[in-house]
Amino acid sequence: MRRKGLASMAVQAVERATSFGPAVALSCRECGERVPLGPVFACTSCFGPLEVAYELPLGDPEGLRRRIESGPANIWRYAPLLPVPADVASRPNLRPGFTQLVRADNLARELGVTGELHVKDDSGNPTHSFKDRVVAVAVEAARAFGFTTLSCSSTGNLAGAVGAAAARAGLRSCVFIPHDLEAGKVVMAAVYGGDLVGIEGTYDDVNRFCSELIGDPLGEGWGFVNVNLRPYYGEGSKTLAYEICEQLGWRLPDQLVVPIASGSQLTKIDKGLRELIALGLVEDRPYRIFGAQAEGCSPVSRAFKDGQDVVRPVKPDTIAKSLAIGNPADGPYVLDIARRTGGAVEDVTDPEIVDAIRLLARTEGIFAETAGGVTVGVTRKLLEAGVLDPSLTTVVLNTGDGLKTLDAVAAGPSVTIRPSLGAFREAGLG
Amino acid sequence: MRRKGLASMAVQAVERATSFGPAVALSCRECGERVPLGPVFACTSCFGPLEVAYELPLGDPEGLRRRIESGPANIWRYAPLLPVPADVASRPNLRPGFTQLVRADNLARELGVTGELHVKDDSGNPTHSFKDRVVAVAVEAARAFGFTTLSCSSTGNLAGAVGAAAARAGLRSCVFIPHDLEAGKVVMAAVYGGDLVGIEGTYDDVNRFCSELIGDPLGEGWGFVNVNLRPYYGEGSKTLAYEICEQLGWRLPDQLVVPIASGSQLTKIDKGLRELIALGLVEDRPYRIFGAQAEGCSPVSRAFKDGQDVVRPVKPDTIAKSLAIGNPADGPYVLDIARRTGGAVEDVTDPEIVDAIRLLARTEGIFAETAGGVTVGVTRKLLEAGVLDPSLTTVVLNTGDGLKTLDAVAAGPSVTIRPSLGAFREAGLG
Repeated sequence: MRRKGLASMAVQAVERATSFGPAVALSCRECGERVPLGPVFACTSCFGPLEVAYELPLGDPEGLRRRIESGPANIWRYAPLLPVPADVASRPNLRPGFTQLVRADNLARELGVTGELHVKDDSGNPTHSFKDRVVAVAVEAARAFGFTTLSCSSTGNLAGAVGAAAARAGLRSCVFIPHDLEAGKVVMAAVYGGDLVGIEGTYDDVNRFCSELIGDPLGEGWGFVNVNLRPYYGEGSKTLAYEICEQLGWRLPDQLVVPIASGSQLTKIDKGLRELIALGLVEDRPYRIFGAQAEGCSPVSRAFKDGQDVVRPVKPDTIAKSLAIGNPADGPYVLDIARRTGGAVEDVTDPEIVDAIRLLARTEGIFAETAGGVTVGVTRKLLEAGVLDPSLTTVVLNTGDGLKTLDAVAAGPSVTIRPSLGAFREAGLG
Repeated sequence: MRRKGLASMAVQAVERATSFGPAVALSCRECGERVPLGPVFACTSCFGPLEVAYELPLGDPEGLRRRIESGPANIWRYAPLLPVPADVASRPNLRPGFTQLVRADNLARELGVTGELHVKDDSGNPTHSFKDRVVAVAVEAARAFGFTTLSCSSTGNLAGAVGAAAARAGLRSCVFIPHDLEAGKVVMAAVYGGDLVGIEGTYDDVNRFCSELIGDPLGEGWGFVNVNLRPYYGEGSKTLAYEICEQLGWRLPDQLVVPIASGSQLTKIDKGLRELIALGLVEDRPYRIFGAQAEGCSPVSRAFKDGQDVVRPVKPDTIAKSLAIGNPADGPYVLDIARRTGGAVEDVTDPEIVDAIRLLARTEGIFAETAGGVTVGVTRKLLEAGVLDPSLTTVVLNTGDGLKTLDAVAAGPSVTIRPSLGAFREAGLG
């Protein structure tokens, strides 16, 4: 019965082929089997994850580059490389992306980096996390498949991104979060007027619940951005790679430090970089990808250090809640990429995360979420260990906003005084 | 003694003329007297406020337009119209601006607007308020005058903007806030590592204290962005006008709804629009500017309704703390502009502000600060009263971010359940 539903939706998908631009099929990451574009996420042969396969516009890199550069200042400038319709920029959506790549000279000095150090600051997105990118692509797929409710399991950032995107797109939303998230994330998830459901459990419990719901009549007509729309959703993360290279002047960075939650973002950044090479938009030379986790949820880092191919699930316990996925679906692929590119996976403690948040704020005026503290902290640790090369061009990702994790940094006034010069003089700050 | 100090600094300013691009002098808004560019803010003849006077690049609108359009996607694309050096874009700063102008069709439908309705969403700035614009311009002036400490009095947003901008620019910062601000604003003001001083009193008390400090040896070498750098600082708000017109396709909107705190932003938006007309970048036709206040701090609205020219100070009591200036310096100029352009000044209650925040979030996926609730609420009120014309092109400003005023909207989960289909079914949300 469920299989029949999927098959009929896949047929609809073929009819709507123009909705997906250059995308031509879904392809299994494990066995390579191809299926038509549809709201499916696992290979029926081997249960491997499906990803979007394209007919990319090869052969005219200069023309493609000009087309991108004359496009809008958001992710839709890369529409020729995404599973979205050609007119996507004119549809009602949040227009995320083309966030700042910040040349972080002050931070470089503090860390002893002599090459170029950049922070890709995705706190500039509409709901202030990179999730706006992936959701924007998923919304187009939801429209194409005729879904009327947009849903997700979320550690917080995704909930806000889905709520906001659904509101703009005129879709209903119903999102699921662990009951104990940060206040900022809870309010942001609820304020857009969709349904918000707290789940008594961890993110992994929420995720399992959503997988059940999707197979139940209750979930019919629902697009779960990170479940049945996951192949499309994931493609949104490629735009981070595109933007970094374009903002570097169509050049690959030598080293990237990327946070790991499910691991999807890191794998899609790698995919995006390889596409740019294949398209002739950047020179083909080596790059190294480094994954960053919080020690309190570091199953991928653990596996990397132990030389394992298998990621053993853990129960998360860290202030970096947006990375607190104990059973990361793309963990094995992250290990592959870190090893293949000569990178690594490392983790930092909660106090190191807080220190790194403050370091980035103090040096570059960027107030990062805990996830940004994780990448900056891991960058520092890998530099100290001699694993990252300080003489190269390095890009560190900040994927979220400090305003959503206020409790992590207990910052306040240096002093509180009466409004008088005498009181100020006594405070000794003049 | 103080006068002598100012004069010698004015001489330095002349020497540094190239630091200010097309700006040639400061000019008194009241009596028109001109003084050299310097860290001064009041006319020595009549005590009127000083503002920046330019030699603008008249005579080649097409060339100027092309130059702007090929500039960076931030306020520095308008460097030829600002008191900043020509190389400003390559200096370390936060690169604010060029935020989204959102075509708000969903909101238009709810409000019965048949023309174009747009929201200029300045929550997309680096510290998520329009203050990044004004501070970025003030930082360049601070550098030119050799100030080493950046300071301000603030209702919150400015504190974060100054802290972040100083960090990136490598300046010390020391900012002053009322002791009872929202948690998000306090943390954001403190996290960048500068000194943050809580003042026991209202914003107006903080402001008076800063005016004292600036005349005291304690404050020597300090650039107060909204006091002794105020003429430069204010110019940053012109970029809102430039961007709105450019994003409309080099076209004036018919109606603008702008929040009023000190009133400076509204007056500079008007200045920016008039400059674009003078430069030939937009067609010269009528526009109307509407000011928006919270009822709990509505001295300008009160004066407008009473037909007064004088604004009588009030003691603020509203959730819209970023607009809670009881003695707005530019109030009389706001009255002039509202009357000259055929606009109005209106206010809304705190519950209307909260309703408007939710309305904007639900319809457009934009989570505004209370100040955005004020402009959207006033827009609704003026439409219902037949004062705003629903058939015209209207732009409503959102100048801040909902994450900084979380307490205003008590939003949370619709329901919290165990992770089971049965529990979800019982919740009745399927």
